[in-house]
Amino acid sequence: MSGSVLGDLFKISTWGESHGKALGVVIDGCPAGLEISEADIQKDLDRRKPGQSPFTTPRKEKDEVEILSGVFEGKTTGTPISMIIYNKNQRSKDYSALKDVYRPAQSDYSYDLKYGFRDHRGSGRASGRETAARVAAGAVARKILAELGVEITAYTASIGPVKIDSENFNQDDIPKNFLYMPDLAAAQEAEAYLTKLIEENNSSGGTIECRVKNIPDGLGNPVFDKTDALLARAIMSIGAVKGVEIGSGFKAARMTGHQHNDFFNYQQGKITKLTNNAGGTLGGITDGSDIVLRAAVKPTPSIEKTQQTVNKAGENIEINIEGRHDPVIVPRAVVVVEAMISLILVDLLLKNMTAKMANLEKVYGENK
Amino acid sequence: MSGSVLGDLFKISTWGESHGKALGVVIDGCPAGLEISEADIQKDLDRRKPGQSPFTTPRKEKDEVEILSGVFEGKTTGTPISMIIYNKNQRSKDYSALKDVYRPAQSDYSYDLKYGFRDHRGSGRASGRETAARVAAGAVARKILAELGVEITAYTASIGPVKIDSENFNQDDIPKNFLYMPDLAAAQEAEAYLTKLIEENNSSGGTIECRVKNIPDGLGNPVFDKTDALLARAIMSIGAVKGVEIGSGFKAARMTGHQHNDFFNYQQGKITKLTNNAGGTLGGITDGSDIVLRAAVKPTPSIEKTQQTVNKAGENIEINIEGRHDPVIVPRAVVVVEAMISLILVDLLLKNMTAKMANLEKVYGENK
Amino acid sequence: MSGSVLGDLFKISTWGESHGKALGVVIDGCPAGLEISEADIQKDLDRRKPGQSPFTTPRKEKDEVEILSGVFEGKTTGTPISMIIYNKNQRSKDYSALKDVYRPAQSDYSYDLKYGFRDHRGSGRASGRETAARVAAGAVARKILAELGVEITAYTASIGPVKIDSENFNQDDIPKNFLYMPDLAAAQEAEAYLTKLIEENNSSGGTIECRVKNIPDGLGNPVFDKTDALLARAIMSIGAVKGVEIGSGFKAARMTGHQHNDFFNYQQGKITKLTNNAGGTLGGITDGSDIVLRAAVKPTPSIEKTQQTVNKAGENIEINIEGRHDPVIVPRAVVVVEAMISLILVDLLLKNMTAKMANLEKVYGENK
Amino acid sequence: MSGSVLGDLFKISTWGESHGKALGVVIDGCPAGLEISEADIQKDLDRRKPGQSPFTTPRKEKDEVEILSGVFEGKTTGTPISMIIYNKNQRSKDYSALKDVYRPAQSDYSYDLKYGFRDHRGSGRASGRETAARVAAGAVARKILAELGVEITAYTASIGPVKIDSENFNQDDIPKNFLYMPDLAAAQEAEAYLTKLIEENNSSGGTIECRVKNIPDGLGNPVFDKTDALLARAIMSIGAVKGVEIGSGFKAARMTGHQHNDFFNYQQGKITKLTNNAGGTLGGITDGSDIVLRAAVKPTPSIEKTQQTVNKAGENIEINIEGRHDPVIVPRAVVVVEAMISLILVDLLLKNMTAKMANLEKVYGENK
Repeated sequence: MSGSVLGDLFKISTWGESHGKALGVVIDGCPAGLEISEADIQKDLDRRKPGQSPFTTPRKEKDEVEILSGVFEGKTTGTPISMIIYNKNQRSKDYSALKDVYRPAQSDYSYDLKYGFRDHRGSGRASGRETAARVAAGAVARKILAELGVEITAYTASIGPVKIDSENFNQDDIPKNFLYMPDLAAAQEAEAYLTKLIEENNSSGGTIECRVKNIPDGLGNPVFDKTDALLARAIMSIGAVKGVEIGSGFKAARMTGHQHNDFFNYQQGKITKLTNNAGGTLGGITDGSDIVLRAAVKPTPSIEKTQQTVNKAGENIEINIEGRHDPVIVPRAVVVVEAMISLILVDLLLKNMTAKMANLEKVYGENK
Repeated sequence: MSGSVLGDLFKISTWGESHGKALGVVIDGCPAGLEISEADIQKDLDRRKPGQSPFTTPRKEKDEVEILSGVFEGKTTGTPISMIIYNKNQRSKDYSALKDVYRPAQSDYSYDLKYGFRDHRGSGRASGRETAARVAAGAVARKILAELGVEITAYTASIGPVKIDSENFNQDDIPKNFLYMPDLAAAQEAEAYLTKLIEENNSSGGTIECRVKNIPDGLGNPVFDKTDALLARAIMSIGAVKGVEIGSGFKAARMTGHQHNDFFNYQQGKITKLTNNAGGTLGGITDGSDIVLRAAVKPTPSIEKTQQTVNKAGENIEINIEGRHDPVIVPRAVVVVEAMISLILVDLLLKNMTAKMANLEKVYGENK
Repeated sequence: MSGSVLGDLFKISTWGESHGKALGVVIDGCPAGLEISEADIQKDLDRRKPGQSPFTTPRKEKDEVEILSGVFEGKTTGTPISMIIYNKNQRSKDYSALKDVYRPAQSDYSYDLKYGFRDHRGSGRASGRETAARVAAGAVARKILAELGVEITAYTASIGPVKIDSENFNQDDIPKNFLYMPDLAAAQEAEAYLTKLIEENNSSGGTIECRVKNIPDGLGNPVFDKTDALLARAIMSIGAVKGVEIGSGFKAARMTGHQHNDFFNYQQGKITKLTNNAGGTLGGITDGSDIVLRAAVKPTPSIEKTQQTVNKAGENIEINIEGRHDPVIVPRAVVVVEAMISLILVDLLLKNMTAKMANLEKVYGENK
Repeated sequence: MSGSVLGDLFKISTWGESHGKALGVVIDGCPAGLEISEADIQKDLDRRKPGQSPFTTPRKEKDEVEILSGVFEGKTTGTPISMIIYNKNQRSKDYSALKDVYRPAQSDYSYDLKYGFRDHRGSGRASGRETAARVAAGAVARKILAELGVEITAYTASIGPVKIDSENFNQDDIPKNFLYMPDLAAAQEAEAYLTKLIEENNSSGGTIECRVKNIPDGLGNPVFDKTDALLARAIMSIGAVKGVEIGSGFKAARMTGHQHNDFFNYQQGKITKLTNNAGGTLGGITDGSDIVLRAAVKPTPSIEKTQQTVNKAGENIEINIEGRHDPVIVPRAVVVVEAMISLILVDLLLKNMTAKMANLEKVYGENK
């Protein structure tokens, strides 16, 4: 229970360090009969991999995934799916100088406190690089959801002070700019902002928004396993995330009940909500409307600009963290957010199959 | 797996409906030898119970807890602790009129979708009343933490547009106003705001902030079981919460790395951070500084003001929800937030005992 | 995690001590829409309750169950089902003399080692009385299975040296004798044997056999969650069980492959096995044939006959355990075995619903 | 939840098929600071690997393990340990003839029922080859236990009708014969018996016994997580096992209480039991005496001798299973039994650290 296992029925176990031999994931509980190939997974990994824009680390990693088990003749067998991604471009020596230094806003210090020592090469297990395994697993989850018509789309909603304008929103624009913004004008402005920060050896925070369309209703459970609760945990588990909100989010705190309540409406045989402040769930259970959530991402902690810190010897020192770092985490985290949401939703999808006797009848009706 | 079980080592299983016979919780995994009494638990339940101020529902419930197992001669035995709270003041008939109506921003509709039908009396399992069981379990968790010197304090940080002023912050003021605000001037202003909303048959949202002092370092795990991730899930699982943030939270999205990074400082044999934007964890692991988090709470959905909605027959109707409702959820949720944080932290505390061989040596050293 | 939680999807949390206020169980994950009443559960509890024959303890307990939550208008709601059984006939003073004595073959000593102290009244949590909660939960599981046509029947297969004769096997005879044997001649012989042991202040062991008919195929999973593995755990968790075998069991060790292999046969559109040495599973997965298993039950440890032991002061002493004890555990454990098997099978039944994409299609096919 | 995850705190996730690219395991929850190397693990794998005696399949697999993560500079880091074993000697074509045949006493038929199809190459996931991953994980668990002085020794107790004689028992003899018997005379007799069966294209069953010395007391929990219950599940999960017993096992069923009860004795400051019918636990909790258990192993199902069966087309046919098979599973399963017991015990060891407040004091005492 070192924290790298997620899910109840669609259970994943991720492993690997930034500068170890490889990273990977084992999925235990993927239903049999899903068509899946390495190409399906690579597509998402390619969106996460570094070195693709002026706004990501130039570390070159192809992040090629290999499926080692659980798939036979192009279909999942129902047994564990093991996937591996070899590290190719480790340059551990970049980090030897930092071996005895506690970098601000990183986990060096807390890992030493917890474990007594740490793998200091590129943050080891605490590196954002571990998210490659999440994305690989998420791609399988997303494939199952896609079979049922579910669409999951995340994008950059803001970088520093630059926000997308809802009037300019265009989903097709997302892959058309380095920053994965659905608003090209905002993207241009954000790129200028980032370019300036790069020059200053500094970095920026931002926000990610995600929309899930056509999610089956009834997912999630009362009390602790509300859909929003499990999504919040999954999103907050991404290294740099400092806040999560669903639907109206923090705005709800300033609203009245009459403003906030989504009124129901019946039209053409269908119940809908006139607004979606709830963000897709009622009482934690999906109600057929879109899931909408947002995450706040802190600025990349590794910056070259001079910082004060301490070393293991207990000396107060100054550091300038050289190496290969993203000036902003947000764009590369977009696909990680999608992966995490896919993983949670597929687990809820499977669990909800057992929620009522009528479903048992559908599956086992012929046994009687 | 209907969503009412929480925790790995300190595992709780809650049960009960708003208008059923009783509510309760079973704690599986409380260490043996903890001194605990019903009075310890009642203290927290009394902070949650209704009918104590003009700003809560007048439903009269004493919420008296009874310990049924797991405690012998004043101490926990290490076996399951079962606690029960009988419902005394159910007025189910208040709800019969709402039997076939989908109230806006409530779970009536989603429960029907998921389960095929629902216990409609007072929202059944979806009622905020289920949090009584959380608070009872949380009180036991808090007792363990207190034995190690940990202090957990939540309070109302805002109601509608009225926020506490950090310069007026006074922890001693929290129990001195109906709204649990650590700023009596803000409390007075918020009370006026609420009084007006009550007159308008409306309700208000707000925010809760929580600080945890003297938490042992090393709690939490990399990747999915980061302290902040598990706290986010726990807080977001409280019915009305729409957002959670830790440390700098959503502000982090607008900051630069150099602004956001907490610099380390070594003084008098101790490493500290000069700021606490991280909010108490690094890489998801507690670093010895205070945990600070905030939750956004939506306005009470049950309001008497006229709303549009639909009924099961598919008719568009108008409703005015009469009955006994809180005009704001926040003050009564303060102790629930403390309970949820206690439950997560005690589970992490127990799990962290196995994080390193040096701890095994401490416990089993004599076996060799 | 004090060991009182069982199951993944149909998760039960039991609690209570022999001489505490009550015992009970919370079921988290029962599908909604199951018709269930207290009478359904009482039926099984009545088979377990003491005082019904010369071969059980004369302690009088009505073991009346009360459902406190999760059932509305006669049907399960999908939320936690809490059940309680109050202790009525505790005579704790019987045990005060044993407070500082370690009774042989009981858990007094090991509980003290583990927890530092123990609830000594009637063995506390270690009493066979805890199985009442298992039986209550098992009755709900059995009801679900019965809806799908599954039949679970356990019976006494031997007491001491007296075994049932397969040629005399008559299922209808099981409730017709105090010992729950499906062979009245053997029952008569066993009663004589027990009567003699009672006179000698001694007790007897025995075996229980269980057959499960019409179980859906495909239940269970490869590797660790084989049906037989989970059944073995569940049966071995009953206090007095020292061995478990499935199908051919220990006989398999003396057979050749050609003798042991169950040959397949195809007839009238159906594949069957010509023998059932496997006992109902292949590779841990049910194959449509009956599940057959056996458990070895040790003799009741509490006997009045003089025994050597030690007390907490470290003195070697002799004891004669007076009080109210069963001269044989087997007959009352029969329904406990059925309960445990029901609990495991219903959990596997629910989990198997997610084993293949074709089942997702059955439940969610209309979402696309 | 496809059944390949085991453990709560020391959680393993195994994967891989007999004729896939590789097999492996991820360990989540190994304490930091354990010295471990590939050589430590290879030692146990070498005892399991095929091709080492006339009584195992001649398939040549070196079963070389590679550690991919979680170990840094020779010590575990506390993060997931991923281990991989590549398959080198797959000869899938041996199996193409069996593609549409349901081999007796194998999982071909049940996998098709459950999943709709299967990886038919060498039984896929159902092959005994998956136990390599168990052994690799078990070697890490064993290393932790060894640090605390725990010794786990399994051996062949019988093959077909040939049993070891307790008077000839010599632990040093175990590695000195191909059959891992602690009695060379019995081994010789068993070898003769097996040689004859090989000539007849038949196979044999047998039993394995295991003893655990110096296990810390207090491990295991009341009710469902009794040490014996968890061991039974783990042992029964090994493919060919049909029965498990602890201590007196099935003999207990024929004994009286006075014969079976282990009397306590106090001598030289220590409490011991005069006998060990309990097999090392009381009430499911270890009491300081040796854990003793036995498993019944069925004969290898794959035999060349003619068998009746059916194919997917529904035809009754005869088959002679050619290929490379062990004439007896027992000797190679000895190390698998040790691995499974190690995995269960290390998990209980970690969990028991949280059983009492006194242990929290040992680990966190300085926090106050």
